[in-house]
Amino acid sequence: MKDIFIADLSKFENQSVIAFFTASMKSLRDKKDGGKYLALILKDRTGEMEARMWDNAAEASPEFEQGDVVKLKALVCRYQERLQLKVERIRAAVDGEYDPVDFLPATTKDVDELWAELNGYIASFRDPHLQALLRAFLDDPEIAAAFRQAPAAKAMHHAWLGGLLEHVVSLMGVCELAARHYPEIHRDLLLTGAMLHDIGKLQELVWKKSFDYTVQGQLLGHITIGYGMIEKKLATLPDFPPRLRTLVEHMVLSHHGRYEYGSPKLPMIPEAILLHYLDDMDAKMQTVRSEFDRSANSGRDGAQMTEWVRAMERPLLDTSGYLAGEGDE
Amino acid sequence: MKDIFIADLSKFENQSVIAFFTASMKSLRDKKDGGKYLALILKDRTGEMEARMWDNAAEASPEFEQGDVVKLKALVCRYQERLQLKVERIRAAVDGEYDPVDFLPATTKDVDELWAELNGYIASFRDPHLQALLRAFLDDPEIAAAFRQAPAAKAMHHAWLGGLLEHVVSLMGVCELAARHYPEIHRDLLLTGAMLHDIGKLQELVWKKSFDYTVQGQLLGHITIGYGMIEKKLATLPDFPPRLRTLVEHMVLSHHGRYEYGSPKLPMIPEAILLHYLDDMDAKMQTVRSEFDRSANSGRDGAQMTEWVRAMERPLLDTSGYLAGEGDE
Amino acid sequence: MKDIFIADLSKFENQSVIAFFTASMKSLRDKKDGGKYLALILKDRTGEMEARMWDNAAEASPEFEQGDVVKLKALVCRYQERLQLKVERIRAAVDGEYDPVDFLPATTKDVDELWAELNGYIASFRDPHLQALLRAFLDDPEIAAAFRQAPAAKAMHHAWLGGLLEHVVSLMGVCELAARHYPEIHRDLLLTGAMLHDIGKLQELVWKKSFDYTVQGQLLGHITIGYGMIEKKLATLPDFPPRLRTLVEHMVLSHHGRYEYGSPKLPMIPEAILLHYLDDMDAKMQTVRSEFDRSANSGRDGAQMTEWVRAMERPLLDTSGYLAGEGDE
Amino acid sequence: MKDIFIADLSKFENQSVIAFFTASMKSLRDKKDGGKYLALILKDRTGEMEARMWDNAAEASPEFEQGDVVKLKALVCRYQERLQLKVERIRAAVDGEYDPVDFLPATTKDVDELWAELNGYIASFRDPHLQALLRAFLDDPEIAAAFRQAPAAKAMHHAWLGGLLEHVVSLMGVCELAARHYPEIHRDLLLTGAMLHDIGKLQELVWKKSFDYTVQGQLLGHITIGYGMIEKKLATLPDFPPRLRTLVEHMVLSHHGRYEYGSPKLPMIPEAILLHYLDDMDAKMQTVRSEFDRSANSGRDGAQMTEWVRAMERPLLDTSGYLAGEGDE
Amino acid sequence: MKDIFIADLSKFENQSVIAFFTASMKSLRDKKDGGKYLALILKDRTGEMEARMWDNAAEASPEFEQGDVVKLKALVCRYQERLQLKVERIRAAVDGEYDPVDFLPATTKDVDELWAELNGYIASFRDPHLQALLRAFLDDPEIAAAFRQAPAAKAMHHAWLGGLLEHVVSLMGVCELAARHYPEIHRDLLLTGAMLHDIGKLQELVWKKSFDYTVQGQLLGHITIGYGMIEKKLATLPDFPPRLRTLVEHMVLSHHGRYEYGSPKLPMIPEAILLHYLDDMDAKMQTVRSEFDRSANSGRDGAQMTEWVRAMERPLLDTSGYLAGEGDE
Amino acid sequence: MKDIFIADLSKFENQSVIAFFTASMKSLRDKKDGGKYLALILKDRTGEMEARMWDNAAEASPEFEQGDVVKLKALVCRYQERLQLKVERIRAAVDGEYDPVDFLPATTKDVDELWAELNGYIASFRDPHLQALLRAFLDDPEIAAAFRQAPAAKAMHHAWLGGLLEHVVSLMGVCELAARHYPEIHRDLLLTGAMLHDIGKLQELVWKKSFDYTVQGQLLGHITIGYGMIEKKLATLPDFPPRLRTLVEHMVLSHHGRYEYGSPKLPMIPEAILLHYLDDMDAKMQTVRSEFDRSANSGRDGAQMTEWVRAMERPLLDTSGYLAGEGDE
Repeated sequence: MKDIFIADLSKFENQSVIAFFTASMKSLRDKKDGGKYLALILKDRTGEMEARMWDNAAEASPEFEQGDVVKLKALVCRYQERLQLKVERIRAAVDGEYDPVDFLPATTKDVDELWAELNGYIASFRDPHLQALLRAFLDDPEIAAAFRQAPAAKAMHHAWLGGLLEHVVSLMGVCELAARHYPEIHRDLLLTGAMLHDIGKLQELVWKKSFDYTVQGQLLGHITIGYGMIEKKLATLPDFPPRLRTLVEHMVLSHHGRYEYGSPKLPMIPEAILLHYLDDMDAKMQTVRSEFDRSANSGRDGAQMTEWVRAMERPLLDTSGYLAGEGDE
Repeated sequence: MKDIFIADLSKFENQSVIAFFTASMKSLRDKKDGGKYLALILKDRTGEMEARMWDNAAEASPEFEQGDVVKLKALVCRYQERLQLKVERIRAAVDGEYDPVDFLPATTKDVDELWAELNGYIASFRDPHLQALLRAFLDDPEIAAAFRQAPAAKAMHHAWLGGLLEHVVSLMGVCELAARHYPEIHRDLLLTGAMLHDIGKLQELVWKKSFDYTVQGQLLGHITIGYGMIEKKLATLPDFPPRLRTLVEHMVLSHHGRYEYGSPKLPMIPEAILLHYLDDMDAKMQTVRSEFDRSANSGRDGAQMTEWVRAMERPLLDTSGYLAGEGDE
Repeated sequence: MKDIFIADLSKFENQSVIAFFTASMKSLRDKKDGGKYLALILKDRTGEMEARMWDNAAEASPEFEQGDVVKLKALVCRYQERLQLKVERIRAAVDGEYDPVDFLPATTKDVDELWAELNGYIASFRDPHLQALLRAFLDDPEIAAAFRQAPAAKAMHHAWLGGLLEHVVSLMGVCELAARHYPEIHRDLLLTGAMLHDIGKLQELVWKKSFDYTVQGQLLGHITIGYGMIEKKLATLPDFPPRLRTLVEHMVLSHHGRYEYGSPKLPMIPEAILLHYLDDMDAKMQTVRSEFDRSANSGRDGAQMTEWVRAMERPLLDTSGYLAGEGDE
Repeated sequence: MKDIFIADLSKFENQSVIAFFTASMKSLRDKKDGGKYLALILKDRTGEMEARMWDNAAEASPEFEQGDVVKLKALVCRYQERLQLKVERIRAAVDGEYDPVDFLPATTKDVDELWAELNGYIASFRDPHLQALLRAFLDDPEIAAAFRQAPAAKAMHHAWLGGLLEHVVSLMGVCELAARHYPEIHRDLLLTGAMLHDIGKLQELVWKKSFDYTVQGQLLGHITIGYGMIEKKLATLPDFPPRLRTLVEHMVLSHHGRYEYGSPKLPMIPEAILLHYLDDMDAKMQTVRSEFDRSANSGRDGAQMTEWVRAMERPLLDTSGYLAGEGDE
Repeated sequence: MKDIFIADLSKFENQSVIAFFTASMKSLRDKKDGGKYLALILKDRTGEMEARMWDNAAEASPEFEQGDVVKLKALVCRYQERLQLKVERIRAAVDGEYDPVDFLPATTKDVDELWAELNGYIASFRDPHLQALLRAFLDDPEIAAAFRQAPAAKAMHHAWLGGLLEHVVSLMGVCELAARHYPEIHRDLLLTGAMLHDIGKLQELVWKKSFDYTVQGQLLGHITIGYGMIEKKLATLPDFPPRLRTLVEHMVLSHHGRYEYGSPKLPMIPEAILLHYLDDMDAKMQTVRSEFDRSANSGRDGAQMTEWVRAMERPLLDTSGYLAGEGDE
Repeated sequence: MKDIFIADLSKFENQSVIAFFTASMKSLRDKKDGGKYLALILKDRTGEMEARMWDNAAEASPEFEQGDVVKLKALVCRYQERLQLKVERIRAAVDGEYDPVDFLPATTKDVDELWAELNGYIASFRDPHLQALLRAFLDDPEIAAAFRQAPAAKAMHHAWLGGLLEHVVSLMGVCELAARHYPEIHRDLLLTGAMLHDIGKLQELVWKKSFDYTVQGQLLGHITIGYGMIEKKLATLPDFPPRLRTLVEHMVLSHHGRYEYGSPKLPMIPEAILLHYLDDMDAKMQTVRSEFDRSANSGRDGAQMTEWVRAMERPLLDTSGYLAGEGDE
């Protein structure tokens, strides 16, 4: 793990630091007095900061490209009331010097706890076939490692490391509650759908330097990839009942709930119908939380509507912020 | 209450009964040998049965119209293996002779228990304003009486007496669970939305002889009517905070979730978003149950898909029936 | 094969025949003079005819159900200028007495010739991997048998035995031409897509007594089933290049061309784009042909528009019929 | 009212003025020779002009924020053939120093005349109930004051002070004509709908410093707010016939004509159908006029199509400008 | 013209008449005592009536087909309180014996008056080119004859003889009013669009025995046909200004207002925008009137909603009928 | 033709050239040391290059406007590794000095060969009427000249000089193949549709200095304009059969295949259905090719997906580039 994060820099004002960041913006510009300087925006998973390199900029510039993780030595100073880095030396970092995880947004939850929670749900299953299927996934070390790290999306809800696991555990929780409320529901089947519905994202996305789609992910999509992964695991479980297999796979195929959203089938069994609603609801609740955070971070008054939220085609309002202002108007 | 229901008639085979039914179909037909006979379908809330009147049919025919509740004397006999009524005398019943409730489909739940459950939720509120608002509704005897009786729809989900109450109580239950899962949620506000979201249906629908829309219901709709009812009750609660009022009303306006479904506003606060998903989900789960019942009643194999369900634009499959047949193919 | 088809009956007027038909309509009715008679519509793959059983109808009725294949003895007579069967004896046929194929609509093409044509295309491949994949399908006796028999749909285009093979061979022909016109195209990949795009229909549909969906077909759909079948065959071809595998599978997934039509992915490679257009075009051309046939069979003037064709949301006009009438108006 | 408007400045070339404007753009920039200067865009209801402050810019900058109304002293000079203000002193104006109305776009019509015209229509009513309802609105001083000032939209048609009144009066005029053309129409009801259809905008929008939505406006919308305002006024008119009330309210609810446009009900009475068409038409005619003005102001040839008009998803063409060029090509 | 219409028959009760009607339903049925009788529904433009032929029915039946105009001799009698014809002789009428116009629904307006009104509008034009164009149409005897007779649709609004003329004259009236309200409008251009917008229907439809589309009408549509007719007439007017020609044609092409409704272009000039709204509004107002008539004729209470009106996707309510019932509930 | 094209300039490094280009971007900017310089982007049909004019810029600037073709004298030098022009003298070119064709993108095919191919198809016709119609178009010198030069679009597929001809010839080729595959097709009719379907673009577009719509093109559209052009040519062919005329015109009207794409009619004859699919497919194949070129030109790895392609609402992947990288991952 990194020693120094963006969020720590305020502790080093007027000191020199050596640290690793992503150079998310890089621009070689003309100085007023001739010569060149480098203008940079540096990021890690805790935030971002502006930086300037005034000396030897032209020489340093070819040493790294925009988007690279860089190693630098810099002075933490203040310009127009905001902290800024004055760079002395800079170069591209090499693989092994850093952990990419430090440079990508990540869940604020404890991944081990989420993992334990997930395993706890599976331990509670009464249906041995479904339990065996889910264990086959989680006991596969490659899948387990990826599942603990994958984001749930490139740019929408839960678009951070651990986001997929966080979303799945939250969804399993609300599915558990729904199974209690609708007693005719096959609870283990519903939870199986919740755990596996997005499993194809492990192959649809890559999250090494940034979040992106694989070519295979673009051409096949996580729904189909997930179906293929389940087929493969089931090939190792010869006693798995064929009808149950069809139902599990149907839940994965139909969980987007509409053809326009890429589901090749609509939910036709009660568990698939519940899964669709609860998955969509949980994702939207997370979008709402993220938007409230973003709005607060941008300094917007919590009693006002947020900006237009494109993913939901509307602005949003934070109930508690709005009610806290009761009596103000 | 009626003495004899359709569901009781098998106990009276070969006996004569006097009873009240709705004549849902009435047709005066030619007998082969000349003369006329009456062919009837008789209904009450427990089911329906065919009937024939062979003698004096022409004279009896003007005594009632199709759709009327009739009083009749008839012999319970059997024709082609099915019970049938051979009518001796028949006339339109007059108001007061019967209770219309006996002739309309009704909830199979205990209305008093549902009512107690509803009141229990309100008793648990911590927000005194919202509690006072809901009490103002339930303590209004006219509203209370209607609320215990109203169907939730003319022809879709919960289209039976008591259906609205049944739906609201189920929805409050699942909202309660969601409020536990998403702790940032204003639980009392969410439950208030659940209780009031369809309150306008008390005036949008009539359910005296059958389920139908009022003209006012057609022209204004239950969303707007409900908004007006809340405004009226709030006029009696001068201390109700204005922002809270806006939020409660927003939840009612936006609960259909899409403009195309008649909501003039999209849900913009977390509680409204949850309410929309859970309301839609609860209604669909009831549709699913009704379709499985209808399919079973029509003798369809429980391991097969139902017929095409127009309200959901797909056929459905009963998980338990399908899995029960595992190993059959 | 059957001895006597509907289309042959005119040769037996006033004679008695023993034959097998499907009783597509069966109704036990009152005779004017008391007693019962059976009214029937009988079908096989060559057509349909009305039938009546005047004697012993009540006794015969329990011997078969509507939809059954029946064995009967009947007189071929004429009623109101049309041939009709006067049934003497009738009972349900038992499995083994008849070949279901005789009772379902079937391709008018020679299946062996179509099969040879299909194999010829594969023999012409230059890409050994794609050739091996397709041979793995056609050399699988279960798949080969089904492929020679399957309809292409339950009720739309090519809804007859052999319809799938007929459609695939026609499509491969037009793909072959397109590959010549657009020389940058990977011809073998395009033809592979053409052969496999609907392969999942072998499991989505059943065509034993009639054309119907399997439950698995309803819940998963032929696109996903086909993807699974390809994955399975590829598991036996360890040297198959992974990128080529992704492209083949992408073509199957995207061939419906739009999300609303059940494709979870849009065509993103040139071969998938061509396949989508040509598949859709070939299916529509067959719909057009079927509608012109149906219209001609119903006696409609060939120079007039057909009735409204629901599958295409428009009426159609037969160019040659219309032009043949040039000068008539 | 202000002494000096943007539109007047050409009369003061090379003179110094003291005036109030909105600083719609403010940017503190580096001078080439070191030091800072302020670049500004200044606006009032008559237009906009660029300004520069070359001396003491850094000191002046904290004295006001972008969006503020400012008081300034400046020289009217000319730069690259266009007038520009060279600012000497500048600070934020304080409430009371100026009338916000001077800084917002406003109708070019005479508000008193529009108001008289509106009252004239009401005076002509034959239905005393509808007349009383409209008088209850116009005689409410708070409503009257707002009605004379409100824009009809934040950014679409009639987005200027007095825009709502201007639109309503134009709409009443065209409704009056339609009532003559379709004699079966209830003319007073139609005119009532015209006057009240957008009345909720008085609370949906604020127009103090700029045009914006209130939070209540966002959450409830002007259709529902308007319905609530009518309910409130009707509470003071106990003799108002209930059916007439339903019709008036239906017209407000349905005037957008489509669910997608936020109407919870479709127009179901002739007057509501007319109101929908004429309201939409009048708004579009005003959009067209505004676009022609904007196009002319931007120097576009009047015989050419305008730019793409997003609100109408097409470009437009001014008939008279186009025909005036007849013979030119 | 016919001597005796359906509407006249009540004057002939118990008398024998000789008359012409359309046999819109014809059914040869079994009499109870053996033998056959004919059951008929007879129509003309004034209404319809049931008829029976008890004697020689089998012989008479081949003399005409359902849909034919028939000549008959019959007794006007009464059966179950309703008039009925007891037919003695009947045969198909031959061309020349009758005027088809007598058997199709027709406008209740005076065609000569409508025609005069139309010519009056043209006489008032100030633009000589547009006047000449419209006169070229109306002075063409073939067009004039068709224009006086054509329906405006096969089955929607104004689907009766003279319906097109009636619609055009009403539309010109409301366009005239709009031109006064929006003074920048080119009034003669707007009226020209109103007169010509549906002119292609003269060739799109036939209305000899019934209302139907021509094959050319189906393949080209009245918008394109109308454009072609204008081009043809303009070829005879060499001085017609080319820009004006483009505008006139644009109005015809765009008057449906949306691509989905078959307009290849959206209205882009003010006159085309007005024409679209007013044409749609006038057609809908006529639909509304027709629905109220149909509803009244079917005996529905005028204070209730009509049945679902498919063309408008909603039920309707007659304002005056509803208000007349004020106080009833 | 021009002497020196952008693509030739690398041969003149460090030499002075006199040449003509389009000044597609022109900006007069401040030099750091005071004074002004001109920054330019210069284009012709072979590419584009940056240019700077450091001396006498203010004087030269009024000599031409952005968008003009300019004549200039300049030194070909190198700046930051890329060629750049250092302008010494510059002025607007005058008509006659240059051929506009040199400044617009143009087909890379040989126009004479395309033209010969087109004429060859017509020569092969067996239907003399259709042949005569097409010859009437191609023998019209004005049409022939335009047809050899017109682009197929302003900004979509084939948006270059000769693009229309290139598209039409490619489409005729694929139509020829389809006619062989579907033998019931009227081959000459299909080819006629292919040649004429976009003929209206000759008047819808102008391509003198850039590609743009005419006002007439905007108001009428190429489908309607094309229909009018065919009508006009047919007026010179009195023996052309009327039904054949309707079919040809129907193909032009319906070739966009959907109302939303501006076709006023859906394809209802087999030839029109084929034309729609093949036209759309050919255009999309060209879009795909252009996108692969653009992607390659921008230096994107050929084994990766392209950027999002807005016209197709998806990214694309070049099959050959992707497969060439097989084994890389």
